[in-house]
Amino acid sequence: MRKMSSKFKNAKRIEGLDSNVWIEFTKLAADPSVVNLGQGLPDISLPMYIKEELSKIATTDSLNQYTRGFGHPSLVKALSCLYEKLYQNQINPDKEILVTVGAYGSLFNAIHGLIDEGDEVIIIVPFYDCYEPMVRMAGATPVFVPLRSKPVDGRKWSSSDWTLDPQELASKFNSKTKAIILNTPHNPLGKVYTREELQVIADLCIKYDTLCISDEVYEWLVYAGNKHLKIATFPGMWERTITIGSAGKTFSVTGWKLGWSIGPDHLIKHLQTVQQNTVYTCATPLQEALAHAFWIDIKRMDDPECYFNSLPKELELKRDRMVHLLESIGLKPIVPDGGYFIIADVSLMDADLSDMENNNEPYDYKFVKWMTKNKKLSAIPVSAFCNSETKLQFEKFVRFCFIKKDSTLDAAEEIFKAWSRQKS
Amino acid sequence: MRKMSSKFKNAKRIEGLDSNVWIEFTKLAADPSVVNLGQGLPDISLPMYIKEELSKIATTDSLNQYTRGFGHPSLVKALSCLYEKLYQNQINPDKEILVTVGAYGSLFNAIHGLIDEGDEVIIIVPFYDCYEPMVRMAGATPVFVPLRSKPVDGRKWSSSDWTLDPQELASKFNSKTKAIILNTPHNPLGKVYTREELQVIADLCIKYDTLCISDEVYEWLVYAGNKHLKIATFPGMWERTITIGSAGKTFSVTGWKLGWSIGPDHLIKHLQTVQQNTVYTCATPLQEALAHAFWIDIKRMDDPECYFNSLPKELELKRDRMVHLLESIGLKPIVPDGGYFIIADVSLMDADLSDMENNNEPYDYKFVKWMTKNKKLSAIPVSAFCNSETKLQFEKFVRFCFIKKDSTLDAAEEIFKAWSRQKS
Repeated sequence: MRKMSSKFKNAKRIEGLDSNVWIEFTKLAADPSVVNLGQGLPDISLPMYIKEELSKIATTDSLNQYTRGFGHPSLVKALSCLYEKLYQNQINPDKEILVTVGAYGSLFNAIHGLIDEGDEVIIIVPFYDCYEPMVRMAGATPVFVPLRSKPVDGRKWSSSDWTLDPQELASKFNSKTKAIILNTPHNPLGKVYTREELQVIADLCIKYDTLCISDEVYEWLVYAGNKHLKIATFPGMWERTITIGSAGKTFSVTGWKLGWSIGPDHLIKHLQTVQQNTVYTCATPLQEALAHAFWIDIKRMDDPECYFNSLPKELELKRDRMVHLLESIGLKPIVPDGGYFIIADVSLMDADLSDMENNNEPYDYKFVKWMTKNKKLSAIPVSAFCNSETKLQFEKFVRFCFIKKDSTLDAAEEIFKAWSRQKS
Repeated sequence: MRKMSSKFKNAKRIEGLDSNVWIEFTKLAADPSVVNLGQGLPDISLPMYIKEELSKIATTDSLNQYTRGFGHPSLVKALSCLYEKLYQNQINPDKEILVTVGAYGSLFNAIHGLIDEGDEVIIIVPFYDCYEPMVRMAGATPVFVPLRSKPVDGRKWSSSDWTLDPQELASKFNSKTKAIILNTPHNPLGKVYTREELQVIADLCIKYDTLCISDEVYEWLVYAGNKHLKIATFPGMWERTITIGSAGKTFSVTGWKLGWSIGPDHLIKHLQTVQQNTVYTCATPLQEALAHAFWIDIKRMDDPECYFNSLPKELELKRDRMVHLLESIGLKPIVPDGGYFIIADVSLMDADLSDMENNNEPYDYKFVKWMTKNKKLSAIPVSAFCNSETKLQFEKFVRFCFIKKDSTLDAAEEIFKAWSRQKS
């Protein structure tokens, strides 16, 4: 056989970046007999109006053609109107907002527009899994700092028990630090950063003149007793922060793949340059439908019916149900203050992993594969959200998604209860 | 004022890549009183079924959620079925097809997945404008080779009069050549490469063990007497070719931003790695609707009603009308054999550009800006499709788009005729 040409090899920038937890575990969960609490994929009923808007718009010829590359005019206008309320400051829809292919696209544009080879980027562990390969693809060095849990003894374990050690965080900053990636509400922990915690990060960003990429896709999904704060509104932070939002998380339409970056013109313009040399523009009918949905909810933000208010209420009940369920089978979940995931130490569950292939995999990878195959329940291993050095710290944890209709949660409950009975 | 931090600067990879002809000229043409023959933006009636499919699909909750990252299962199945007919070979829907954010996304994924810093990439001038910045963003060196026109004397001038000089093309290949980017049917010339021309390119690709990125987004839009050929079907070429297609061009839905790459597993897998670290997945409802539209037309490919047959017939009449119109005002257009653009030397048109700002701009940039402002007709300057060294060669040419409804072409005709009367 002819030797394979070196020209058929991957470019160096993607060397070693080919594995991906979503692709691997989504394939496993595709079996229709599996109850899927894995990927953050809502199966609840969508708001009727968002579907109806898209359905109407689809029939208008001109709304199926190219639109403005940096964001459909009606959508950037809606976004600026919404976020002006939250920032209590004017936001220029053309220069300070960029609509992207999901929040994923915003992360990519920010990293590739602003981060150079040789830069350092601070990533807080655990982290949404794409942060690390995106930083590596830019030729930069990720510098990891873990969230650490306080002892909780008999108390419930809360995502707020997981905090950064300010000294440890400070030790990661130096003159090479180009940016820190923040994620609040946090995936997978569900942690909602407090004002004091954000102030520590802001102070370091200012001291070391560092950018902040703030992934706030779960911004509306915070539960009683918590409040989502935007680090971009802290003194001295607007000029150095890119804040990222998501239509998929805001309106439960993950399949629309629309997100946005908000920040000062002098940063956003570099993200725009990346966009115009990668995808050029986003889908028009989806952007127009999203703009209509935003206007409906912008006009009723104090109303409990507003989706920004009703969805977290609906999810809080589901969270509480998941907490109760996990506790009832003897686990100690980490109760999330935001987002739609809950993680729990599953090493107490009875699972015989000795037959699992690939013994080099972390415990949680093997556990989830075993559970998907033998219990017909899928989840996501938390070590997927860790760099290689911290995987061991988190490999007993598994993440369950709870933005699921009652019948899905019922089916999960049946599985857990039967499993628990079998054990005792 | 505080000195701006170096951390707020663009990353080096996008240095100098911020200007973009679409963004500049689309903004100019946005004035509703302007007749827009600029961007390739169809204003003809869309096929009813594609709009209806999207309208129906929008109301199904699950089709608004994430789908498979490398392409929605029903869409890659439809694509493999269609292209198996054209390649007369099996195509694995999961491994040999990648659905992307437009053909633009396919170009980006191919270049960033396969091209390294220091590589050379051959680009044929004129070229679709994003090829050059995408290659530069990958840190590679574009190497340009021009299409040259034979003298045509009294004859009509055809896109087929523009050819590559085989010796000149061969002189651009060397051991650093990683890839050549081919575009057939060609934008902006409308050239459809012949078997002999493609064989010259294929022979060089094989001799120098070079990849071929073949942008075939106008594959269905070829006019009487011409046939679109796929270089990937030439002996020895499948294994080294990425072929790129577009939903926007195939079904006249440019706003859907869906495209695809087809090629061997050993190349496509690297494009997949780029995709999973940039956008992860494409919009689900659009992919599902596109799959439905494909099935409708795959089942009637020999029927004149099939959109793959009816659209080129409809466009051929529009092309002929544009040729006639441009000739009637004394211009000599280059008659395209494919695509939906026509270019003409406009230096004979009476236009006083002396007042135009920015005298460093090429003639055609100034001409189009002047025409948009003073004649309320927009187009695209052809030097936008050239590297800086060849801009002078093409700066008298302007590109007009003719995938326009009759009333739009009527309005353009009125403008041209009034302008021509004024001159005489």
